[in-house]
Amino acid sequence: MKNLTLLTDLYQLTMMNGYLKNGADENVVIFDLFFRTNPCNNSYTMIAGIEQVIDYIENLKFDEESLVYLKGLNLFDDEFIDYLRNFKFTGTIYGVDEGTVMFPYEPILRVKAPVIQAQLIETTLLNIVNFQSLIATKAARICSAADGDPVFEFGLRRAQGPDAGVYGARAAVIGGCVGTSNVLAGKRFDIPVVGTHAHSWIQSFDSELEAFRAYARSYPNSTTLLVDTYNVLHSGVPNAITVFNELKEQGYEPKGIRIDSGDIAYLSKEARKMLDAAGLPNVKITASSDLDEDVINNLKLQGAAIDFWGVGTNLITSKSCPALGGVYKLSAIEVDGQIIPKIKISENPEKITNPGYKKVVRIYDKENKKAQADLIMLDSEEINTNEPLTIFHPIYTWKKKTFRNYETKDLLVPIYEQGKLVYERKTIKEIRKHAQSELDSLWPEYRRLNRPQLYKVDLSKKLWDLKNQMMDQFREE
Amino acid sequence: MKNLTLLTDLYQLTMMNGYLKNGADENVVIFDLFFRTNPCNNSYTMIAGIEQVIDYIENLKFDEESLVYLKGLNLFDDEFIDYLRNFKFTGTIYGVDEGTVMFPYEPILRVKAPVIQAQLIETTLLNIVNFQSLIATKAARICSAADGDPVFEFGLRRAQGPDAGVYGARAAVIGGCVGTSNVLAGKRFDIPVVGTHAHSWIQSFDSELEAFRAYARSYPNSTTLLVDTYNVLHSGVPNAITVFNELKEQGYEPKGIRIDSGDIAYLSKEARKMLDAAGLPNVKITASSDLDEDVINNLKLQGAAIDFWGVGTNLITSKSCPALGGVYKLSAIEVDGQIIPKIKISENPEKITNPGYKKVVRIYDKENKKAQADLIMLDSEEINTNEPLTIFHPIYTWKKKTFRNYETKDLLVPIYEQGKLVYERKTIKEIRKHAQSELDSLWPEYRRLNRPQLYKVDLSKKLWDLKNQMMDQFREE
Repeated sequence: MKNLTLLTDLYQLTMMNGYLKNGADENVVIFDLFFRTNPCNNSYTMIAGIEQVIDYIENLKFDEESLVYLKGLNLFDDEFIDYLRNFKFTGTIYGVDEGTVMFPYEPILRVKAPVIQAQLIETTLLNIVNFQSLIATKAARICSAADGDPVFEFGLRRAQGPDAGVYGARAAVIGGCVGTSNVLAGKRFDIPVVGTHAHSWIQSFDSELEAFRAYARSYPNSTTLLVDTYNVLHSGVPNAITVFNELKEQGYEPKGIRIDSGDIAYLSKEARKMLDAAGLPNVKITASSDLDEDVINNLKLQGAAIDFWGVGTNLITSKSCPALGGVYKLSAIEVDGQIIPKIKISENPEKITNPGYKKVVRIYDKENKKAQADLIMLDSEEINTNEPLTIFHPIYTWKKKTFRNYETKDLLVPIYEQGKLVYERKTIKEIRKHAQSELDSLWPEYRRLNRPQLYKVDLSKKLWDLKNQMMDQFREE
Repeated sequence: MKNLTLLTDLYQLTMMNGYLKNGADENVVIFDLFFRTNPCNNSYTMIAGIEQVIDYIENLKFDEESLVYLKGLNLFDDEFIDYLRNFKFTGTIYGVDEGTVMFPYEPILRVKAPVIQAQLIETTLLNIVNFQSLIATKAARICSAADGDPVFEFGLRRAQGPDAGVYGARAAVIGGCVGTSNVLAGKRFDIPVVGTHAHSWIQSFDSELEAFRAYARSYPNSTTLLVDTYNVLHSGVPNAITVFNELKEQGYEPKGIRIDSGDIAYLSKEARKMLDAAGLPNVKITASSDLDEDVINNLKLQGAAIDFWGVGTNLITSKSCPALGGVYKLSAIEVDGQIIPKIKISENPEKITNPGYKKVVRIYDKENKKAQADLIMLDSEEINTNEPLTIFHPIYTWKKKTFRNYETKDLLVPIYEQGKLVYERKTIKEIRKHAQSELDSLWPEYRRLNRPQLYKVDLSKKLWDLKNQMMDQFREE
């Protein structure tokens, strides 16, 4: 990954300079990165992008060209430019493993660092985690609708720029896709790449049949033919069958057809019948035409004969919900080794932050290993799993639940300790496997696409008390 | 710009290899890049990204690492890998100047090249032009709602990856924004960067007043204070006024306040009154809270006292319409120096392509210089502007219009001639100025945000005849 040190909002730099000028730059602070709402009315958000956060931190360095540029803004003096020249991240970052499913208000990354450092990295951390988590979540929804059928990511041409295509493909695979059309993403992340031919291939020959034959000559072992350039049932499928029979005579096994327009439900069922009648039951049908989880659901309900799904625009941009609104909020400062909790008050109750140095604990049923609830707690708190645990809703406090036969897991794990990378980096395969086990740990009621059950995320009694006490104190002032 | 040669769909490479294997690789073809629908129900799309298309073409080169990767896919033999090793773009590309407003079905880029080359570049051309045109158009809408007030692009943290933040900021400025918070975009494209401080600045001090004073000490000449960390009217604005008065006593001119949450209409009006009453009529108010063109329109209707608008998520992702569906379709092939038009038929009439080697001509009123209509024509056709020109609707052919006192402009200009860059590259300032003149050339009826008038885009009689004749011929076959 390239050096993204300048990929930040100007106000991070003006604040950094301000801290330096006020002698506050080395004050240690704690920031939480979290979101307030799941995308697409989903019940969870699948976190992705942690490996790119690490790439970013590893490459943090202000090069001379950047320093000349910043100097030229006439906002900063030489003291600050010198500070930047020697900038080094020395903070501690805890975060969740990529592929973990998380819920609103839970810290996903927790940064403890001198304020001048913690501030610089805000924007890029958000940029990376917001986008990849959004696409991983959308992909998980789409793959859930496909119900086990392979889903391919085909959206590069509609992605919001080159990076969106590449990192979007990565996140889509984390969320469940089995491959991508994006060659650069395939190379960079060791993801399977797929693709055959376009309408232009057909058009550039004198006839569809000639074009199919030419393609089959080039790829006799993996011939998938796009059958909707002229007319699917009267031209595309009959011509494909002709070529498939020719391939079989030569001892090859034809692979499939792709339908990219028209009434996919009807066309796929008719095409299936024609292929079966021609003795080609193993030829698979791929659909790719403005698909998303709702369209796939509907096609399934109609009995469409689709084996593979190619999903483009609606996945790579998460079109129905194209932004995850992650934020990065100061939750505490450290003074003489003491943690002083901080709160942000707002007229909008959902914008009031959870103060303090916190962690997130997931509670599992010991028998079936399903996730039961999450608890946001102060980092210093411990749960004794030998005793029953009672949690309560942070607003409707009479809503309580007691766990007896349970086990717990700390979701935030060390990534950086005082500037040193301590995290064992993961391959896409490992991340994808973890993501799958995360989905498996959720009851179907949380995973369903429409009106899912709300997963419980409560605050520990101590944190709840702290928050209410700070809000009361603010009112008194 | 980095080397994006592998940023393509795999099927481009399988087709390229297929053309090579079938001895068809050097056949010259013509592709049109166009879109079928304007984003956000707008009446036009502002084209952006042409400079990045040039960067991409200039850097086209398969490096050895990429060739090793492609070889490892077990799809391609050494002949093809050698071909790629020596790949060089030798084609001709015509396109519109960046900032030009275009309409559905009009070629934006026209590529004439050996098919093996024309195919490779499809995906990246679409990726670049789709995204930047989308954001330039969204920005033009937002700036139109702001009605002359400066609009800043603040969306990096919610952008769909790093590139989306950087190129999105660029496109936003082309569309009318006056600056961005994105430092890397500022440096790369010489765009003004803006920004002051965040809520965390306030929280990290013991009190809001102390935080304001510390900020004012660091930036006495450009003090803008964020007033909504605790309570805008009871805390933020009174504290800001205290600090502004202190600044004035020291001979400085305070700049402004920013409101980032709550009832912006009410808060801005009350804040304005308080500032005016305190003798601070020159202190400006910036709003930044989930804004878009509709919210800005509504705030204006309510008489909100906002001077500057900071727009984030909704602009940088074009949230209400996050994809422009540009396509790249084969329109002709060249055989022995003769252009043979090609058409793509579809059950969906809107997906039938316009065949032939085409150009786009805009017709202006000679008196007021307003754009009257566009005509998609065959490249070989000429208009004699000394004679009246009658155009007709391509579907409702009885709808006709005759121009008498008019002038015309060819919108497609040469960018590459046989692989050589012949285009004079533009700065952002030049592009932004052109974009502004393009908007000025449209009657307000086309520019309005809701239910704009439909701009006329007709086909020349020759092109219309060709298309209908080809569709008839297809039906007969």
